[in-house]
Amino acid sequence: MTGTDDLAARLRSGDRRALARAITLVESGRADHRAAALDLLAALPDPEDCLKIGLSGTPGVGKSTFIESFGLMLTGQGHRVAVLAVDPSSARSGGSILGDKTRMEHLSRDPAAFIRPSPSQSELGGVARRTREAAQLCAAAGYDVVLIETVGVGQSETQVAHMTDLFLLLLAPAGGDELQGVKRGIMEIADIILVNKADGDLRPQALRTCADYAGALRLLRKRPQDPEGFPKAMCVSAIETTGLETAWQEIRTLHRKRRESGWLARSRADQAVHWFEEEVRQALLARLRREPVRGLMADLARRVERGEETPAAAARLLIERMLGPGAPADP
Amino acid sequence: MTGTDDLAARLRSGDRRALARAITLVESGRADHRAAALDLLAALPDPEDCLKIGLSGTPGVGKSTFIESFGLMLTGQGHRVAVLAVDPSSARSGGSILGDKTRMEHLSRDPAAFIRPSPSQSELGGVARRTREAAQLCAAAGYDVVLIETVGVGQSETQVAHMTDLFLLLLAPAGGDELQGVKRGIMEIADIILVNKADGDLRPQALRTCADYAGALRLLRKRPQDPEGFPKAMCVSAIETTGLETAWQEIRTLHRKRRESGWLARSRADQAVHWFEEEVRQALLARLRREPVRGLMADLARRVERGEETPAAAARLLIERMLGPGAPADP
Repeated sequence: MTGTDDLAARLRSGDRRALARAITLVESGRADHRAAALDLLAALPDPEDCLKIGLSGTPGVGKSTFIESFGLMLTGQGHRVAVLAVDPSSARSGGSILGDKTRMEHLSRDPAAFIRPSPSQSELGGVARRTREAAQLCAAAGYDVVLIETVGVGQSETQVAHMTDLFLLLLAPAGGDELQGVKRGIMEIADIILVNKADGDLRPQALRTCADYAGALRLLRKRPQDPEGFPKAMCVSAIETTGLETAWQEIRTLHRKRRESGWLARSRADQAVHWFEEEVRQALLARLRREPVRGLMADLARRVERGEETPAAAARLLIERMLGPGAPADP
Repeated sequence: MTGTDDLAARLRSGDRRALARAITLVESGRADHRAAALDLLAALPDPEDCLKIGLSGTPGVGKSTFIESFGLMLTGQGHRVAVLAVDPSSARSGGSILGDKTRMEHLSRDPAAFIRPSPSQSELGGVARRTREAAQLCAAAGYDVVLIETVGVGQSETQVAHMTDLFLLLLAPAGGDELQGVKRGIMEIADIILVNKADGDLRPQALRTCADYAGALRLLRKRPQDPEGFPKAMCVSAIETTGLETAWQEIRTLHRKRRESGWLARSRADQAVHWFEEEVRQALLARLRREPVRGLMADLARRVERGEETPAAAARLLIERMLGPGAPADP
């Protein structure tokens, strides 16, 4: 307990090693570490003035270069920037996207920046919770901009949207007929679409791509909490560092409006409740992953798949085995 | 049990009253009814050649008129058509959308058609399960086209997509700047977007709207199981019954390709497993809605919302109370 208090104090003073240790604690699966992590989180604030930004983009769009340029611009303006990742490293080749810090070599050496690779754990729900808690730790350590990136494995964008104040989607210019396919669901979450690589020969393509997405965004319903014009699409060049300042202004405008309207505070309270309910659900569903329930569930799923059992009958069998006969299988 | 056997036999012979009674049985919350429903579902086949179509469209797009015209065209071609709804009636004013059968007055009197209002229950998960089971009953009763409609309350489209073979989105023409907003998430599910009211003065607008959505669909990633050109956008007029035959040909083409590739059988097996797992989850989560857990959960949610408790600490408290101390709160 004293260890936790000490760690909390050092973290709040901005000690990077304390922050790294605290994140290791929230990432740990050990019961005693988890207990210490809960104490730590309860002892730390989640400052309102920290702007948490979600960022999604498939490999090849220049995400690392964007984070490097954007992050350096922000630290140059006096901000302190933390970068976290939500995707389970096992879901892609070559380990965590941030493991290779050489891809952000200047930002990773910047004393005003803190880069943390994605925890090496395969279960997205667990990674998301740990990343959300790590973001709180970064905020408590005085980082006023926290970037949480995802490459869009499965439901990770939705998870990131539930832990951030606004969401960026990074795209590459697409040529003519072979327009790149945005994964279904991501465009729905994005507050600002940034078409990267708007430089050199690719610039005309980037402008066209931007116009295409701007058109597509207009077909979606406007969010009531946002000013006119959002969600919007813009061009940037991470390599030439053009458009980044404009993007930052738009981000600040959106953030300020959402704050002034009271939506931001409401959203954060809702997010906290969401994660509480999510944790309860996860803990309950964790029972399904424990033997012997897990084995029975897999058997029954195979029988349902082959049509030997209806979904309802199989579910009733499993629930009776778990909770005893007579347990209501009916929601 | 004999009663169930008898009901199953009459239902398979195409007896409409037996079908209606069977659906009432799967909709019932009574434990003995549920047991009989499970027997019934296990005794009946879910014929592969029944085409289940999801249909979404907000009020005002002419959904009832579309179902009336489209349904009558199909029965005129010798098909037997069932229409079900997935939205909880409490979620909109005036009760179930299909309660007012006068809106489909010809189809509702057609002996080759069967229209069933949405079950009057407020909990979407329960309604979805019952609708899926009702669709199976309709298929077993010899209806070879089952239309499942939703007005898009909450997650209902996703639920419908999990119980159908393909998904239609019905839209109205939108004028110039005031392009209608498609609810975020629906466009992602649609296989075919139908812009209705492509008649009279609205026809030019309908053509433009169709082109806009066709453009937007091209920005989304193509599904690997589908032929070139899908998802696609088309114009129809339910009132003038134009475009309906073409739409039906496209539906059949998509359905045939998915069937030939083996994707359809795979999808249905996956759907069955999905609903099995969903039923298990629902039954487990139903524990959270029972007192005293429910009261405690509400209290804790309020404390989390006010920032008095972290999500993780509150979840641990609740789980310990439910499953006993030492129960792992960690997924």
